[in-house]
Formats: sequence, C-alpha cells, structure tokens
Amino acid sequence: MRERLVIIGGDAAGMSAASQARRLRSPAELEILAFERGHFTSYSACGIPYWVGGVVQERDALIARSPAQHREREIGLRMRTEVTGIDTGRGRVRARDLESGTEEWTSYDKLVIATGARPLRPPVPGIDAPGVHGVQTLDDGQALLDSLAPEGPRRAVVIGAGYIGVEMAEALIQRGYAVTVLNRSAQPMATLDPDMGRQVHEAMCGLGIEMVNGTEVTGIETGEDGRARAVTTAEGRHPAEVVVLGTGVRPETSLAAAAGLPLGAYGGLLTDLAMRVRGHENIWAGGDCVEVLDLVSGQERHIALGTHANKHGQVIGTNAGGGYATFPGVVGTAVSKVCDLEIARTGLREKDARAVGLEFHAVTIESTSRAGYYPDAGRMTVKMLAERRTGRLLGVQIVGREGAAKRVDIAAVALTARMTVEQMTALDLGYAPPFSPVWDPVLVAARKAAQAVREAGY
Amino acid sequence: MRERLVIIGGDAAGMSAASQARRLRSPAELEILAFERGHFTSYSACGIPYWVGGVVQERDALIARSPAQHREREIGLRMRTEVTGIDTGRGRVRARDLESGTEEWTSYDKLVIATGARPLRPPVPGIDAPGVHGVQTLDDGQALLDSLAPEGPRRAVVIGAGYIGVEMAEALIQRGYAVTVLNRSAQPMATLDPDMGRQVHEAMCGLGIEMVNGTEVTGIETGEDGRARAVTTAEGRHPAEVVVLGTGVRPETSLAAAAGLPLGAYGGLLTDLAMRVRGHENIWAGGDCVEVLDLVSGQERHIALGTHANKHGQVIGTNAGGGYATFPGVVGTAVSKVCDLEIARTGLREKDARAVGLEFHAVTIESTSRAGYYPDAGRMTVKMLAERRTGRLLGVQIVGREGAAKRVDIAAVALTARMTVEQMTALDLGYAPPFSPVWDPVLVAARKAAQAVREAGY
Repeated sequence: MRERLVIIGGDAAGMSAASQARRLRSPAELEILAFERGHFTSYSACGIPYWVGGVVQERDALIARSPAQHREREIGLRMRTEVTGIDTGRGRVRARDLESGTEEWTSYDKLVIATGARPLRPPVPGIDAPGVHGVQTLDDGQALLDSLAPEGPRRAVVIGAGYIGVEMAEALIQRGYAVTVLNRSAQPMATLDPDMGRQVHEAMCGLGIEMVNGTEVTGIETGEDGRARAVTTAEGRHPAEVVVLGTGVRPETSLAAAAGLPLGAYGGLLTDLAMRVRGHENIWAGGDCVEVLDLVSGQERHIALGTHANKHGQVIGTNAGGGYATFPGVVGTAVSKVCDLEIARTGLREKDARAVGLEFHAVTIESTSRAGYYPDAGRMTVKMLAERRTGRLLGVQIVGREGAAKRVDIAAVALTARMTVEQMTALDLGYAPPFSPVWDPVLVAARKAAQAVREAGY
Repeated sequence: MRERLVIIGGDAAGMSAASQARRLRSPAELEILAFERGHFTSYSACGIPYWVGGVVQERDALIARSPAQHREREIGLRMRTEVTGIDTGRGRVRARDLESGTEEWTSYDKLVIATGARPLRPPVPGIDAPGVHGVQTLDDGQALLDSLAPEGPRRAVVIGAGYIGVEMAEALIQRGYAVTVLNRSAQPMATLDPDMGRQVHEAMCGLGIEMVNGTEVTGIETGEDGRARAVTTAEGRHPAEVVVLGTGVRPETSLAAAAGLPLGAYGGLLTDLAMRVRGHENIWAGGDCVEVLDLVSGQERHIALGTHANKHGQVIGTNAGGGYATFPGVVGTAVSKVCDLEIARTGLREKDARAVGLEFHAVTIESTSRAGYYPDAGRMTVKMLAERRTGRLLGVQIVGREGAAKRVDIAAVALTARMTVEQMTALDLGYAPPFSPVWDPVLVAARKAAQAVREAGY
C-alpha cells in the first residue's frame, strides 16, 4: 500500500529528508508532500548575510533546489501554505493556503517536522514594528534588502552580537550604512569566552562599526508612519532606518507544543538517535526546531546551523524511506568571520563546563598560521579547555587570520573521539612552512594544556 | 654525580632534545654536549626551498636558535665537528674537528643520535660532480644559492618529483631558471596515488616547468671544469648549469650501522616508544635517521619531516632529563603546495594498503573550498580509502585550492582515533559559507566511502 510522507517546512532539513526518502522509495511506494509557508525551498539561510552585503550577487545563488526541481523528482510541494495544526491521534495536519486563506486537513502515515527557528525578539515596545528585521528565511532577507535605501546618509542598528549579528553588521557596512551594534554581553560573540570575544570587538571597531557592549534594549521608537526610527537603551537613543535582530533564535515549535509533542529546556523538539520525536514511531523532527545531544556535556542543546539540518534530513529521509541511520550528536563546532578575522569554537566554553559540573584547566597560546618566517604568517590565538584530572579535551576556541577557522576541525574530531590533551600532543598534523609552524598552534595549545593537567595532580 | 648527555646532530631532533633535557635538569646535574658537523643549529630544513626561491629573504630567518643562543642556555656545542665513531661498549664517541682535523674521544652517560638524512643519489656516473646539489641542510642550501647565476639564460634540472623536487622546481622558476623535472614515476608526487598526482603534473606544467615523467636518469655529463653540464636519460640529454636532487632521502645511519645498532628495512634506526634505540637503555634516536611506527599499517616507515623531528626531540629530552614521555607513531600526514595548488595526504595510498594485506574501497569526490555561491570557491578533489568490511578509514588525499591542505588534519585525527568512514559522516566540522560548503568535502567523501562499504557487503 502506498504511504504518504508529510513534511512541514521546505528548507534544509525538510527537503533533505524528502530527497533522501525519494532516493530510497519510488512514488508508487511513497507519496511525499511538503508544506512551505514561504516562497522558497532548500536555500542556504547561512548565506543571507553575504547576499545582503552584496558579496553574493543573486538571491537564487543561495537556492540549492527550487520547488520546480523538487517536483521534477516527484516530491509534492504546497508553497505559501502554512501548517496550522497537527493531529497526531488521527494522523493528519491542517494547512492554510496563505493566498486564498482556505484550510484543509491532509492525512499522513509518516510525518517530518522541520519548522526551523524564529528570531528571539526582546520583549520591548515596538519590537514588531515595520523596519525591524529578522534574517532567518530568504523571505526575511528579501524584505530587508527591499527596505535598504540605495544612497544618502543611512543608519542601521543591529541588536545582538552573536554570529548573525556580527555578520549582518558587516553586511550593512558593506551596503554603506553607519552601523551600531547593541550587545547585552560584555563582548561580542558570546559563543566564545569573553577573553576571546575581545578580539572580535576590536575587529568590528576596525570596520567602523559602533559597538555598544553591556547594554539592554528598552524599546523601538516608531515614527508617524509606524516604522522603526530609533532603538532606545537605558543609556541612550540610537536612530536607525533599519533594525536587524541578531539576538539569536528559538526553535519554532508552537505547532509541536500545541500537538503535545515533547519539548526540551530550550523549547526544541526532543528526538531519539534516529531523529524520531520521542514517543512517536512515525514522526521525525530535524533542523533548527530540535534540540541535539551535545557529546561533550552529555546534555541537550539548541544549535541552529545548516550543516546539522542537512545531516538530520539525511538521517530522517533514510529512516522514513525504510533504511536505517542515526545522528549521534554534536560537539558544538561553529566558525564565522568578520573582515579578515576568523572565529571558531567547538566543545564547551568555561561557563558551559561549569554549568555541567566539569572542572577544567584553561590555557591560551599565541602562534601563527604559517611558519614564522613565511610571508603573511598571521597571528592566531588558541584557547583550550581540558578536564581536570582526566585531561580530556573539553573545548577549543580559535581567533586569528587566514587558516584559523577550519583548524578547529582538529579539535572537533578529537572531541568526538574523546581524546585527552596529552594524546593530542602527538597528533600527526599537516606541516609545511606555507601552512603551519613546525608545531601547529593546536599542538602548542595541547602541550600547554597537558602540562597544566600534569602539574595540577589531583 | 653529574652525568653527560652527548648529542650527535645539531638540528631539530638533537637540539629539541637538548633544550628539553636542559629544562628538566640543571647544568650541575647534567652536562649537555652536542656535535654538529655543519655551520648551523636548529634550522628549518623544510624552509630551504622558500629561501632558495626568494620567498624567504634571509637565511637566518630559518634559524630558530643559533649556537650562541644554545650556549647561553648552557648547552655545550662543538660546531663543524663530525662524529666518526660510536663505541657503545665503553660509552664514548670519536669526533673530528673539521677545521683542524684532530680527532678525540668523548665519553657519554647518555647518547642521542640525531644524524638526519642524506639525499638518495641515483647510482649513475657523475652524480657526485660539483653542480649536483642536495638540499637537506642549510649548508646545502647556501651552496646551491651561491652557485646560482644572477642573470642570463639559465637552465636547471631537478631529478625526482617528490615534495622536495616539486618545491625546488618552483623555487628555481622563481629565480628565473628554465626548469626540467626528470621523474621516474608516471606522475609527480608519488606520495599520492597517480590519479591525484595528475593534478600536480598539470599545475607544474602551468608554471612553465618541463615535466618528463616515467624516465630514468642514466648519468650526469660534466664539462672540462668537472662541473655538471647536463643530465642524460635513455631518451635524451638535458643541459643544465644546476642539478638538484629531489629523489628523496635515506636515513643517515652509517655511524649507527658501524656501531652495530639495529636498523630497519629502510635503513633507519629502530627505537621503542620512548625513542630509545632498541636494546640500549641509554641511547635514544630521533628525527630523519629513525624509522617510525605507522599507526595505520602497523609497520615501520621512514618519514623525514621536521614536525616529527621536533616531537622526537621533545620526547627524547624529557626521557633523557629523567621524565617520561612517548612518541606513539605517525599516520603519514604530509602537506605541500605548488603555485596555488595545495597537496595533502595522510594514511595509506592504494599501493601501501595492498602491500600490508588490506583490502579497501577507494572513492574520489569533487567539491569546493567554500559554499559554491561564495566568491573564490576553489575546486577540491578528495580521495578516501576505507577498509573493506570494517569500514575503517585507511587514508585520505586532497588536492585543491586554498583550504585544501589543512583539511587533511580532519582525516589525520580520525585515523589516530581509528574511526570508520561511517562514523566520519557525522563529524561536527566547522561550517560557514566562507569556509566550507554545507557538507564539507571530507564529509562528502566519507558518505561516498561509507556507501561503498555498505553496498559491498562482505
């Protein structure tokens, strides 16, 4: 009997699942039907800041596969159609056509929830005014670009200095805006420890971005037209024609919550290792709407990142297509850049480790991206956390010039393998003068961390 | 009682050992005396091609620590003094002062052998003629540079196309020479499988280097002045004022052999995990003169590489200084570049795997260094070998533009942790559009390799 697989959400996780399920099952065996409330499918949300900044010229460059391309592969799609209810008891979803306003129920045998994330909006007056932009979807990005003035004195405020905030601030500078970043933390990039975030602060100032750290937004001031015209804090008022939310995201799980599906501490859906929603044999969830197991802390986290969403989709599509696959978890790797400063982290920050009861030694070293004598050897700072007593690697943060970001992959693999920093000191990493000093910066950090562990004894 | 540690060889392994032993033991406890036959200590031999090519301007930039700097740290040094014999029975070495010609015996309590490597010289007439240059030591590099003509039509032949041959060919092009590379193998860079070496061949031709693959050198023709003036092969004659040996190296172990110390199949000293020469409690050896355990094949190999030499020295110095450290082995990581093509390998090539009885699946994928839509996304080819049945990663080769070389570190750590390619498919690698497609090229290769393993069954 032909089954129907219904997918809620047409971006990375949902459509990867659809494509993988289609590879394993023919249309005669499995009908696949995806609902997407926006205008686009399978796009790189992570690329939006580069499109807004003009580094990427064409919106369509961000689209990996259009609705028409999915339909050619016999994947059914209802675009501009928002799912408004899930009835797990009867196995059906209610969906509203956003053009016509009509609603109807569609039954499913198997269901995939891939509803993504929504930007955190500080609960202040005016936050929903026109001119205040999230940048989660391609539609969001298009709305922001449409609102940018092509010339004249133009001001933008970015609220928040996580990686989206940092990337958007640079994008708006590239568009000729005067940009102010209002940041609640002491340093930008709170995904790093503050001592490492300091270098990001300096790089942003170097771009001409006005950085205001340690501040709370109290409201959005609107003009007579109802549009945002300034952002206020306890300390002052920052005029802006454009306001961008870079305050992070929350899982978009209101539908799942209403259906009684299990949510975790961060509001994300809880799944098992096969990406099935816990307690539900025929419902899977993946991408930005789920919590993932952090292999270092042993606890769930919420991480909105396209690479995870794609892996989830692959696993879900394999399972929904009758195969077998699991997603074992993450170690928390993230890379970013501002100007030519590369920023990378994996594993736990100091406060993450403390929060789960881990004691640790933290070391920081300075090195270079190439042999010191080789031209353009750039400075690189590596911070490493090792567990007290066991010496197990807990986390690495790297900030530096060319070659800094992807070096964090060394630590990502070492975390996955649960290596100790002592074991890491012997890693056979690539060495040649154009690519590394004879002791790679990660090895230098591992040596220092191993020494700290040894010298501490118990 | 004060002991004496004697070290033969004043470059990376020897002087790292000296420095580390000095950190652990004061001059009152341990006298340290190193013999070096050349003019320099603690230099980057790997940097010589960049100095010859003019990328690095000053010879002294390659010197990490001069004899005077070592002496300041109370490490005794006899420069231009060649050890000519080791008497393990009586615990002494015989050394000749190369200036005065006088020889004398020096007793040791502990001995470190760090005699390095010498270039393989094809056994053909004229190979020892003036004008034929090895590039193992800083003295070699100086001799080569001194012999280069500053202008006019100038021709060079490089014999061999391993990484030294490739780097030296590019260096001589940078000096304005017309360069011919005579290479015995079907493709340059025989440390790669031939299918990957093909891209190196193309990049070298792109630099204007004349590549002659699959040829054997039959002799060096000398002029009336006795200097090399051409290199002959079965097929022809290649005039050259300068000939460079890029044919690889052999461990320099004639002293050790004469002393009856144990050598392996490649002529390198055999040590235990503490880097002690097997069967000798008080003799250590490290750097280019030893064989190292290959953790993937389980057999000894000879790999001349500064990063290993430094690690060996660190381990030896710790042990000779009364501490404890081991060198667990290597996985065979090497990176290099020619023009803007980055070249990397780790683990086993196809023929290495076959030679040790491993059956495998080999897959090759094409991807890019950044998200496809991001500017300057460069092509990258990744080849991956996975063991048949177990799916254990056996080796990775990467050739591509910016960002290709150090990606091999991902595989180096995975090899050390004995991961399967299936496990690798879930690795949490850094992703952002400027640094990687949403599926990192290494993950794409791992997925394809895992599929090959699965589909093959037994």
